[in-house]
Amino acid sequence: MMLDGVFKMADNDHGADNGADRGGAAPSLDMMALLRNLFPLPRSLTGDGVRATLTALKADLPSLEIREVSTGTRVFDWEVPREWNIRAATIKTLDGRVLVDFADNNLHVVGYSIPVSGTFSREELARHIHTLPDQPDAIPYRTSYYAENWGFCLPHSLWQEMQDESYLVEIDSTLADGALTYGELFVPGDSNEEILISVHICHPSLANDNLSGIVVAAALAQHYLSQPSGRLGIRFLFLPATIGAITWLAENEDELHRVVHGLVLTCIGDEGPFHYKRTVEGAVVDLAVEHVLAHSGHAFEMMEFSPYGYDERQYGSPGIALAVGCLMRAVHGTFPEYHTSLDNCDFVTGTALAQSFRVILEVIDLLRNNVTYRRVDGRGEPQLGRRGLYRAIAGQKEGGGASQMDLLWVLNQCDGQRSLLDIAERSRTPFSRIRAAADLCLDAELITEVRS
Amino acid sequence: MMLDGVFKMADNDHGADNGADRGGAAPSLDMMALLRNLFPLPRSLTGDGVRATLTALKADLPSLEIREVSTGTRVFDWEVPREWNIRAATIKTLDGRVLVDFADNNLHVVGYSIPVSGTFSREELARHIHTLPDQPDAIPYRTSYYAENWGFCLPHSLWQEMQDESYLVEIDSTLADGALTYGELFVPGDSNEEILISVHICHPSLANDNLSGIVVAAALAQHYLSQPSGRLGIRFLFLPATIGAITWLAENEDELHRVVHGLVLTCIGDEGPFHYKRTVEGAVVDLAVEHVLAHSGHAFEMMEFSPYGYDERQYGSPGIALAVGCLMRAVHGTFPEYHTSLDNCDFVTGTALAQSFRVILEVIDLLRNNVTYRRVDGRGEPQLGRRGLYRAIAGQKEGGGASQMDLLWVLNQCDGQRSLLDIAERSRTPFSRIRAAADLCLDAELITEVRS
Amino acid sequence: MMLDGVFKMADNDHGADNGADRGGAAPSLDMMALLRNLFPLPRSLTGDGVRATLTALKADLPSLEIREVSTGTRVFDWEVPREWNIRAATIKTLDGRVLVDFADNNLHVVGYSIPVSGTFSREELARHIHTLPDQPDAIPYRTSYYAENWGFCLPHSLWQEMQDESYLVEIDSTLADGALTYGELFVPGDSNEEILISVHICHPSLANDNLSGIVVAAALAQHYLSQPSGRLGIRFLFLPATIGAITWLAENEDELHRVVHGLVLTCIGDEGPFHYKRTVEGAVVDLAVEHVLAHSGHAFEMMEFSPYGYDERQYGSPGIALAVGCLMRAVHGTFPEYHTSLDNCDFVTGTALAQSFRVILEVIDLLRNNVTYRRVDGRGEPQLGRRGLYRAIAGQKEGGGASQMDLLWVLNQCDGQRSLLDIAERSRTPFSRIRAAADLCLDAELITEVRS
Repeated sequence: MMLDGVFKMADNDHGADNGADRGGAAPSLDMMALLRNLFPLPRSLTGDGVRATLTALKADLPSLEIREVSTGTRVFDWEVPREWNIRAATIKTLDGRVLVDFADNNLHVVGYSIPVSGTFSREELARHIHTLPDQPDAIPYRTSYYAENWGFCLPHSLWQEMQDESYLVEIDSTLADGALTYGELFVPGDSNEEILISVHICHPSLANDNLSGIVVAAALAQHYLSQPSGRLGIRFLFLPATIGAITWLAENEDELHRVVHGLVLTCIGDEGPFHYKRTVEGAVVDLAVEHVLAHSGHAFEMMEFSPYGYDERQYGSPGIALAVGCLMRAVHGTFPEYHTSLDNCDFVTGTALAQSFRVILEVIDLLRNNVTYRRVDGRGEPQLGRRGLYRAIAGQKEGGGASQMDLLWVLNQCDGQRSLLDIAERSRTPFSRIRAAADLCLDAELITEVRS
Repeated sequence: MMLDGVFKMADNDHGADNGADRGGAAPSLDMMALLRNLFPLPRSLTGDGVRATLTALKADLPSLEIREVSTGTRVFDWEVPREWNIRAATIKTLDGRVLVDFADNNLHVVGYSIPVSGTFSREELARHIHTLPDQPDAIPYRTSYYAENWGFCLPHSLWQEMQDESYLVEIDSTLADGALTYGELFVPGDSNEEILISVHICHPSLANDNLSGIVVAAALAQHYLSQPSGRLGIRFLFLPATIGAITWLAENEDELHRVVHGLVLTCIGDEGPFHYKRTVEGAVVDLAVEHVLAHSGHAFEMMEFSPYGYDERQYGSPGIALAVGCLMRAVHGTFPEYHTSLDNCDFVTGTALAQSFRVILEVIDLLRNNVTYRRVDGRGEPQLGRRGLYRAIAGQKEGGGASQMDLLWVLNQCDGQRSLLDIAERSRTPFSRIRAAADLCLDAELITEVRS
Repeated sequence: MMLDGVFKMADNDHGADNGADRGGAAPSLDMMALLRNLFPLPRSLTGDGVRATLTALKADLPSLEIREVSTGTRVFDWEVPREWNIRAATIKTLDGRVLVDFADNNLHVVGYSIPVSGTFSREELARHIHTLPDQPDAIPYRTSYYAENWGFCLPHSLWQEMQDESYLVEIDSTLADGALTYGELFVPGDSNEEILISVHICHPSLANDNLSGIVVAAALAQHYLSQPSGRLGIRFLFLPATIGAITWLAENEDELHRVVHGLVLTCIGDEGPFHYKRTVEGAVVDLAVEHVLAHSGHAFEMMEFSPYGYDERQYGSPGIALAVGCLMRAVHGTFPEYHTSLDNCDFVTGTALAQSFRVILEVIDLLRNNVTYRRVDGRGEPQLGRRGLYRAIAGQKEGGGASQMDLLWVLNQCDGQRSLLDIAERSRTPFSRIRAAADLCLDAELITEVRS
């Protein structure tokens, strides 16, 4: 076999390309500190807990826009609901001893509970009590958004001890016209196209299921605001689930064509394997996430789309059809801490948050750098030697880590149809090396970008 | 995760949906009785045995049309052959003792045998004798449609005992101009499109290989004649194999575009696993049969198309290209009873016929109900609560067995491209539940039919 | 099941169809003798060794055209390099004892070494010495085409023994304007389309890596020159790797559309399993090679395309995009003899060359005979009996080995879209039998060729 010069082939590294060891970008934001700070705020679909959460985020992200949409606003098939606020809630013995107090844990009150005040027999009260007999020390998380009701959530063990005939019950809440509140932050890109990152902010004191997504999204926003702009803009949405996403979609219907890739982030603060749920129709973002995870060294599983889950359901509904997948670690409904008081700040770790930050950052970087090129003159291989490309590869600095094999793949496959990600997948090479090889070819004017 | 209300998800039942236990439609026709009634009739490609068979069917199916096409009629590359009738046939000893008598079993004479009468030496006779040395007590089934000849089929054991020097041989048959006879019954549908169900009626006393298909088709015809009309018409053909199908195709060439799905039925009376041979190009009917069998609780195997077999060969030939598959239980040529006197009324069971009836009924029902819808307003999920859809699901009656998950699948996937069968397959849900969910959505005016 | 007449189905032979046992075409050319004859010639990218090789081939192939392209000619991104010739090269002890002599083995000198003459210290000389410490008795093969340099290759054991302080070194070579030389032979076909067979001729005394391809290509050329012409022409190229292919492509750019299939042949003289590297985009030639190998009885492996390898890289580059695969037995870089003096005439066997000849001949024959037909009248199956097609099959001579099943496949699948190879693959039947069945159908005017 003849080669264009005398050298040994660099091995094509098919092994793990563990981001954690590459000393790449680390978040400037202290995600665990922010998470602990946000944990006690009484978030719900609407209300002051959401506002307080967004205000806290704005301290780290001054360009975050906090938007309000009035109760009763028509959003597609829905209406913005009344705003719920709660100041206090207790169950006391008739002699005034406090047994259950919203001030201790805001999971104690069913979300959207209407105000109540009075003495209830144990039997009457029982119809409003939610416990988990199988997890007797955990408080469950319950809501009643669209049916007027009230209720308390408490450890089953406590409820078992409560054997008085009657109790004093008080919920000091209001359910009234107001607004739905959400946050939006846009990192502009060089083109009209953008990546959507969406997290829900409607869960009260749950650390993995909602806060982990919020703090990683915040860290990513802060990171990209400090970077030079890229090809694609990045839009971060912090919104209440379902009604929030529907509201944002309805308010921005004419601009949705700008969203070319998207991710919903949730439950990404535990140390379990990554799970990625594919988009409805299959999309580049699915391939990008799978590529990054496969080269990350982390355990992961790709899951087929299903219509149950988070706001990817709304983004992917037939008339919207945005390519938005969902990245998780623990999967909703399958871990014992899910929707209980056990999903607390101890369940989430700084290490896990940092890993998730890094994975998503690599996905975003990949998507922003995933260009399609064609060879300027594709007739046969170009002569690499006289262009100094072998030297560039030999010297790691100039070559950016690309091997000669990576160069050959780029030169052979840049046909104006295949993207760099397609080439990375076909050659089973980490994207970063194919990107580096493409940069060498760009410098040598061997390839040129194809605009779609 | 936020949901539109407080409830638990119903489990998505991926398990067997055994039709046999659902107490659905049972045939009004007594299939075993009809089969026993038809068994002794001397069927062949043409002749009075075919006429008697169709006349017997017409007693149960008054709307059955019995058609005759004259000998010599050109049908595509073929000609309708002469009509064959046989009154009697014997082999006797020279002293008049009857050893072989057509009156005992009409398999004894090779189909389309020309008349013969005379004394033959054992050696001469031997050239006209067919036996099965490996199955010495069985009579084989043989024909000689297109080469003028005559012959007898008998148990090998009997032939071994026949050691006289000569025998008296007589076949009282006629091969003369006449007609090819077939039966046709049409159950009209609401549209111009139809499903074709085709069975062959040219085999004499063989129970599984031809009679099982005939009686199940008759029972299905009687069932659908008593039902409200459906989206698609159903055309039942009872015809001699190959030349019968070619004749029908030639006589109906201008109307073939109406046939959108089809099934050839054969050997569906034994208790073995189901076998389905796919259409030439792959078609919806293949998916429908696989879906029904997969949820039926019966063992089954999907087989690739091959050009050897039954009339699916004719329906699928290049210039015709109808989407017609072939449903069997025992597969021709692979079971010892095949084309012998062992394929008798004991080889077929009423249980097996009822199972086959049910499976085909479910396939037909599925095909008739397999509509493509699109969301009326697909922008985000609709609000289910205010439309009473949760209540409908909770109350089994209104919901028709659909779960909330089924509803979410239908709402997410009805994009005007995917049929309900596509959605059932993607969600791994029995078609009936997806159909029920779609009915709820139709009632709520959330989806609308797409006409192709 | 009814069939058109009384007969038994022939078994569809899915087993091995071992060409070696069929006594088919054998090469008229003595490939081992030619290989031994060419072995000592000092081939390189350019020069008199190449000319001598082509002149020797011309003795067997008088219609071989020997072409010269001048140094400095621009060919796409490259320039034809200067011509290299070498007359002698030695390393001697200071007292004149010859230790290394180019006359003994032309691997001893690094290809394209510039002239040198003088006394060198062992230390200075060491920078120009190439050995294989792991294979101490083998001489490595090295070149330095595009960087001016000189060097010797020798057994590591010899170099270990050479412990003098200084040596007399001489390389009597010239690197000067001249030409690049290649050979081209065209076997005309009945159409404008052709098959390309390309082998490299730039390796000196290496038997498997370059000579095996050369002698099999020569034997194939001689064979097809003696045969009646076929549907496709066959173009044989004998050229230096990379720059030779690029030169030929540049010189023939306007005619490249004629090449519809192609094969690069290399390392096909050892007795190991076959390896076939697919084309960049997937092509009929890939399917043809896989079909022939699968029915050949030889062990084989299909390999995905990669941009590292032989001239399939050039033929498949984005702007050229010819469907050219690469057939090998031993794979470059993976066997110990590769690019060493161990790849000699003992490593290659006449048996292996004959097997490779036969496999490639079957691939070429298949490609030339792979026509697409449509049924003249596709409405139903034609009546085979009255056309004598059953008789043709029963008598092997007329039927060419086709079975009734093969006939049914051809009649069912000739829809004007599928080629005979497609039908052979779908029916899992050797191409030759499907071809024979198609010939019967052609004779009976049942099918007609579709020109694309």
